[in-house]
Amino acid sequence: MKLWQKDNTETVAQIEQFTVGRDREFDLQMAAFDVQGTLAHIRMLHECGLLETQDFLLAGQALSEIAQEIAAGNFSIEKDCEDIHSQIEWMLTQRIGEAGKKIHTGRSRNDQVAVDIKLYLRQALLEIKALSTQLFETLQQQSETYKEVLMPGYTHLQVAMPSSFGLWLGAYAEALSDDMLLLLAAYRITNKNPLGSGAGYGSSLPLNRTRTTELLGFDDLHYNSIYAQMSRGKTEKTVSVAIAAIAATLGRLSMDICLYAGQDYGFIGFPDAYTTGSSIMPHKKNPDVFELIRGKCNRIQALPNEFSLLLANLPSGYHREMQLTKEMLFPAIQELRSCMEAAILLLSHMLVTTGILEAPKYAYLFTVERVNELMMSGIPFRDAYKMVGQEVEQGTFQPGNRTVKHTHEGSIGNLCNEQIKAAFIKTTAAFE
Amino acid sequence: MKLWQKDNTETVAQIEQFTVGRDREFDLQMAAFDVQGTLAHIRMLHECGLLETQDFLLAGQALSEIAQEIAAGNFSIEKDCEDIHSQIEWMLTQRIGEAGKKIHTGRSRNDQVAVDIKLYLRQALLEIKALSTQLFETLQQQSETYKEVLMPGYTHLQVAMPSSFGLWLGAYAEALSDDMLLLLAAYRITNKNPLGSGAGYGSSLPLNRTRTTELLGFDDLHYNSIYAQMSRGKTEKTVSVAIAAIAATLGRLSMDICLYAGQDYGFIGFPDAYTTGSSIMPHKKNPDVFELIRGKCNRIQALPNEFSLLLANLPSGYHREMQLTKEMLFPAIQELRSCMEAAILLLSHMLVTTGILEAPKYAYLFTVERVNELMMSGIPFRDAYKMVGQEVEQGTFQPGNRTVKHTHEGSIGNLCNEQIKAAFIKTTAAFE
Amino acid sequence: MKLWQKDNTETVAQIEQFTVGRDREFDLQMAAFDVQGTLAHIRMLHECGLLETQDFLLAGQALSEIAQEIAAGNFSIEKDCEDIHSQIEWMLTQRIGEAGKKIHTGRSRNDQVAVDIKLYLRQALLEIKALSTQLFETLQQQSETYKEVLMPGYTHLQVAMPSSFGLWLGAYAEALSDDMLLLLAAYRITNKNPLGSGAGYGSSLPLNRTRTTELLGFDDLHYNSIYAQMSRGKTEKTVSVAIAAIAATLGRLSMDICLYAGQDYGFIGFPDAYTTGSSIMPHKKNPDVFELIRGKCNRIQALPNEFSLLLANLPSGYHREMQLTKEMLFPAIQELRSCMEAAILLLSHMLVTTGILEAPKYAYLFTVERVNELMMSGIPFRDAYKMVGQEVEQGTFQPGNRTVKHTHEGSIGNLCNEQIKAAFIKTTAAFE
Amino acid sequence: MKLWQKDNTETVAQIEQFTVGRDREFDLQMAAFDVQGTLAHIRMLHECGLLETQDFLLAGQALSEIAQEIAAGNFSIEKDCEDIHSQIEWMLTQRIGEAGKKIHTGRSRNDQVAVDIKLYLRQALLEIKALSTQLFETLQQQSETYKEVLMPGYTHLQVAMPSSFGLWLGAYAEALSDDMLLLLAAYRITNKNPLGSGAGYGSSLPLNRTRTTELLGFDDLHYNSIYAQMSRGKTEKTVSVAIAAIAATLGRLSMDICLYAGQDYGFIGFPDAYTTGSSIMPHKKNPDVFELIRGKCNRIQALPNEFSLLLANLPSGYHREMQLTKEMLFPAIQELRSCMEAAILLLSHMLVTTGILEAPKYAYLFTVERVNELMMSGIPFRDAYKMVGQEVEQGTFQPGNRTVKHTHEGSIGNLCNEQIKAAFIKTTAAFE
Repeated sequence: MKLWQKDNTETVAQIEQFTVGRDREFDLQMAAFDVQGTLAHIRMLHECGLLETQDFLLAGQALSEIAQEIAAGNFSIEKDCEDIHSQIEWMLTQRIGEAGKKIHTGRSRNDQVAVDIKLYLRQALLEIKALSTQLFETLQQQSETYKEVLMPGYTHLQVAMPSSFGLWLGAYAEALSDDMLLLLAAYRITNKNPLGSGAGYGSSLPLNRTRTTELLGFDDLHYNSIYAQMSRGKTEKTVSVAIAAIAATLGRLSMDICLYAGQDYGFIGFPDAYTTGSSIMPHKKNPDVFELIRGKCNRIQALPNEFSLLLANLPSGYHREMQLTKEMLFPAIQELRSCMEAAILLLSHMLVTTGILEAPKYAYLFTVERVNELMMSGIPFRDAYKMVGQEVEQGTFQPGNRTVKHTHEGSIGNLCNEQIKAAFIKTTAAFE
Repeated sequence: MKLWQKDNTETVAQIEQFTVGRDREFDLQMAAFDVQGTLAHIRMLHECGLLETQDFLLAGQALSEIAQEIAAGNFSIEKDCEDIHSQIEWMLTQRIGEAGKKIHTGRSRNDQVAVDIKLYLRQALLEIKALSTQLFETLQQQSETYKEVLMPGYTHLQVAMPSSFGLWLGAYAEALSDDMLLLLAAYRITNKNPLGSGAGYGSSLPLNRTRTTELLGFDDLHYNSIYAQMSRGKTEKTVSVAIAAIAATLGRLSMDICLYAGQDYGFIGFPDAYTTGSSIMPHKKNPDVFELIRGKCNRIQALPNEFSLLLANLPSGYHREMQLTKEMLFPAIQELRSCMEAAILLLSHMLVTTGILEAPKYAYLFTVERVNELMMSGIPFRDAYKMVGQEVEQGTFQPGNRTVKHTHEGSIGNLCNEQIKAAFIKTTAAFE
Repeated sequence: MKLWQKDNTETVAQIEQFTVGRDREFDLQMAAFDVQGTLAHIRMLHECGLLETQDFLLAGQALSEIAQEIAAGNFSIEKDCEDIHSQIEWMLTQRIGEAGKKIHTGRSRNDQVAVDIKLYLRQALLEIKALSTQLFETLQQQSETYKEVLMPGYTHLQVAMPSSFGLWLGAYAEALSDDMLLLLAAYRITNKNPLGSGAGYGSSLPLNRTRTTELLGFDDLHYNSIYAQMSRGKTEKTVSVAIAAIAATLGRLSMDICLYAGQDYGFIGFPDAYTTGSSIMPHKKNPDVFELIRGKCNRIQALPNEFSLLLANLPSGYHREMQLTKEMLFPAIQELRSCMEAAILLLSHMLVTTGILEAPKYAYLFTVERVNELMMSGIPFRDAYKMVGQEVEQGTFQPGNRTVKHTHEGSIGNLCNEQIKAAFIKTTAAFE
Repeated sequence: MKLWQKDNTETVAQIEQFTVGRDREFDLQMAAFDVQGTLAHIRMLHECGLLETQDFLLAGQALSEIAQEIAAGNFSIEKDCEDIHSQIEWMLTQRIGEAGKKIHTGRSRNDQVAVDIKLYLRQALLEIKALSTQLFETLQQQSETYKEVLMPGYTHLQVAMPSSFGLWLGAYAEALSDDMLLLLAAYRITNKNPLGSGAGYGSSLPLNRTRTTELLGFDDLHYNSIYAQMSRGKTEKTVSVAIAAIAATLGRLSMDICLYAGQDYGFIGFPDAYTTGSSIMPHKKNPDVFELIRGKCNRIQALPNEFSLLLANLPSGYHREMQLTKEMLFPAIQELRSCMEAAILLLSHMLVTTGILEAPKYAYLFTVERVNELMMSGIPFRDAYKMVGQEVEQGTFQPGNRTVKHTHEGSIGNLCNEQIKAAFIKTTAAFE
């Protein structure tokens, strides 16, 4: 059954299969939201005098039942229905007759899908915010736990200056905090109501879009009907940008972990139950989880560009390939979530090496310390720098006592995790 | 002169040229910000007792003079200096002797460049916000001017339902309004202070980073030193994401304009002085400006991905290729600005065709109107839809009087430009 | 069952699910190739004296049976096996005991997977070549059918000079012919043998890699073991580049078709059974198939970059995310195939409008013709150009008789389809 | 002066600046090729009777003089000329009067630019092939020099099995060899003649395109005029794909080098004159060159996608943004060349550490060796694997004598550099 079928012309089977594609699979994930959108729509229609009381009550009742069936898992899109919208309209017509045929009044499949996607993504963003909070807390917790354990800091992949596990893990917590700013922007763009924009040119019926905005809990309307339609694709792309920012943070952390878990660095490890082996090398305990997180996060980072390519140079107005945004974005959201969950689990079980800086190869970590000492004794910085440089050249440099006494904001001795947490909470609180 | 030169080892010339690259060119654009950052740094050093009064006063005076030379255009980076930082330190040493050698106390080139880029981008974002406001106002003005002039609305590039120039132009104004949300997120991530993070691992000197944050007018600190360093690359990427969003809006508008300016649509045109011709076809008046805007905006849309590729899989800690972010982002910002300026100019001179909907090919625009009429007379939507569908099949469909009476929010008859303007102002006001 | 399991340490269930991911799904598609690779490997082992005759015969027999089960569809990867390789080794051990444990001698899962992917992609490339040939022939056939039917040619989306359906369709055939050059390069890079490179560092056993190269019908070896391993990821990326080139051609053709099928151009159409309708506008017959091809082809064009992001900045040596290349590439290959099949079907049923150039809006198509006439009468080109330009300005330009007499290679009157076909055949013949 | 100017309408200055953009800068690089293309064009015109002998001789003579001025560096594009084509036509008209106005007969700026770009890129590809050969030889030479020096081989960034500098460096040589296959495909697509296709729809003049193909030394024609025009953008993109493949190889090598040059690995180093220092850490000797190569190569890898975005969803026919391809591709070609030159220089001076495998952390490199020994003594592979695995678990594993006796093709003991070289030569020879 297709909502647009007028007579007996049959679409060629190959064409039908090609155009329907994976719609049934992804539409199923939107089923509850489709019902929610339709319930708001018919209530508004009723209040505007565009749907009689009895029809409204009948349809409302039937839709609520369908909502329960969806929640209970007793729902599927039948082979004859090309999408979730056809399925639900068909079920309604079966169950309540004529009233079912009236629910599409003043609505196009375009704004219907648009609002479904908005509702779906709004919830997804809230879930990602929650997972981000968990990951943030795990990172800060481990940062506090290991704040006294020193490790080398690198620039150019060369030994540079002393760092600590506290500083390193805390950095990724703060990174996540900034990522929330993009997530919030995506949330705000998502949380606007396209319903009532029809196929992009509105309707001659006296709809009340402010009312459905209220009923569906949106912040505001996408006012302009053409823009409401253009928000499709753009909303998905913006969400992809936001999750790609988190993916970038997680991916970079994963690369650090894979490097630090190798025998040459040897800074961290994981219990056997969290690593995997090799089919040929019996000694291997590979950090596969973080390699996969790294790879999956790179795939997620590729997504905004995929959206750009989908949308580039398309004139305004709906185009059928907008249908593909579901299969582009929904699995990516799921992947990011599983990556975050895996990272939280693994980080909680991470094993940390102590006493790392004792190794001779790390002596030069302390050259800046020595420069600072000379400088405090009155030698200008640039001259002190040259003196220590010459000690290094001549092999006479000695690192001193290898303790570190940093005090300024954001240094080893003063991580400012509290201030970072406050910033994180401030941004995530703005979602409400 | 290189800040890191310790003795007489000469770098091989080819290597020097390769590593310096285009730094001098782009550093020059940051000169004023480099001085601003150093002034804040030395004032803080002085207040913390790390720089004596006389040295502070001497250096402050000399830096202020350099700032004036930069503002007056009397400044260049000499061939012997590899970057702006070497140039300024060298000038200071020439002018005030020993005191010049002390300004780098407690600072690395890493946090120095990071703060310069932050200051540069903060100003660039404010300028783009201002241009966005101009473009927004131009679009809304033209939307109001042409709100009564109808045009076809399309879906699938097929004639769909009646639209208007007011609706079409207003859509892009609202699109820009949403783009400001990403611009604001980029601004917030940009407007944080990395100064004092050294090479990513802080300093053992008792710096006061809160003080430089205040002096430089930043919202907050990038607290964690490692993250402050990681913000390099990430900040630039986030700015690229935000300008790419504006570019997407502008690019899509440009595609519409190129299409509508063609003879087959024939909806709009431009005075001769705003078009260009062909070397072989004497009749051509091409909308080159919008083709170039489209192309340049596509290039800008490619930029976030270029940043992702630069950063993907890099472990934490500074890497030298971060130097390339200037040549990636600075010209793109300039390109976007010139695209926006050109668009504002052209849109102000756009010529609009009236009476478009009279053409027979646009009759079907009114089928939904007819469905709605039937529905208001009591026929269920889905049945009315089929009736009109059959009229179309049989060639008996007549469009009626071709007037449009839309009233709901965001429709042809009720553009809601005021509400959209309020949203735009609300977001842009949040930059302060 | 995992090939690398040594004792009773259980991997945490969430970790196991995360690391196995979608492997079972995609490995199933490689099952036949895995058996093929193992058969070659054990024959070589046997010939080198590394596998006794009885073991070789037993394993060979059992593997042949498994191959038949795969071909018959009686094969699956059991829940306990993490991948196809574990599944087959486990089945062998069940069926033939000790001999089954010997087949992995001198082999790593790394080179095993690498060779499976090579065999899979080699076949996929040959299938795409075959489909390209079909699409090429369809385009050339339609080019010949409609070679006398004129249409406008555009530059800058403005009416430019006369064109024809023959020229337009023939262009895409020639585009495909050039695309075969990239497909061939991908085929050559694919058709090399990585088997015997182990985990990237070869084996101390005296393997004969030349022999497996021969047995598996590869052109040559990936000699260097590290490079053989690095070819993973690179091979998939190169294949993605090649299919993206075809996708670019198909996508651009689709955009033309969507545009030309609109009412403003009105150049082409499709029978109702090949279009779809709207849920709200009863008159719509949308060219959804080509919109979807356009969108899917854009997604395919995003793929090479996704591979770049996966691989960027990774040091040499196997990394676990290489596992993701299957789920990146295999579905894209399938999508391209379905797009090509749909395009072939639709192009065969395309309806073409005649008499297009009679419309007044197309008069200026003939200005160059007029310039050429003047020039043949002795006026220098640049002066003739200005004269006609002034006729256009003054509204006195008349197009003349609107016939077109082009004779040079590749023009309306001389399409050179034969020469283009010869080039296509030459390139595709080089695959053998 | 603009080739399309017909009267006194002045283009608005801002518009002119915007549309001309950076054309003068990049056109200058194509000057010699523009003359070459015009010389072939007028000879063909003359032979076809479309240009009189005297005009041909005059123009030919004047063009040859201009070619000499270009070669001597005495040539520039004047401020009044918007591009190279206007400049040269204007110079001709100044020098030889009426004859100069005739050279554009039967040609459009479109095919003129297209052929210029083809000639430019053809030469660029040959130069890149030559540099690739140098880089290939350097890698093979160093592979041979260090073929006895062992180093650890890694998988998952974990110590895996023994490798050697010979194997590692030889891998990148073979990678380059495969990259030549894509470079060759790009060369073949580049080396086709678009001249005579006019603005994409040919000419009614009896041009002889086969003749210009011959005169310009192209392999073949882009026959179909529309496709010849579409080859613009596509050719540049294909070249970008090919250079991106080389960039991927070079970038990955650079990452290895940066990692191996760090103190934790410590496998390689460079003389001081080839490294750079830090402004704050006096001990630093950073491998900046390879970091920059890595970054620049990532930028080059972003380029094919930038082309995809430029071209995505554009209908056929010339669009003005094709002008941007020069500024996208030409600097990237130059960057790749400088990266290759720097890599050749640095690789020639690379310092290699010996005795690496003696360190205790590398003991497990030899577990596979031990498995193979057990297996040769009759124990099935999978059982031997478990035995050694248990030795590792219990801390009883001993690596034996740490010598490596690999003999098969492409292993440490049998690098097959000769065969790889033969393959390289075979592919590069096909360019002729």
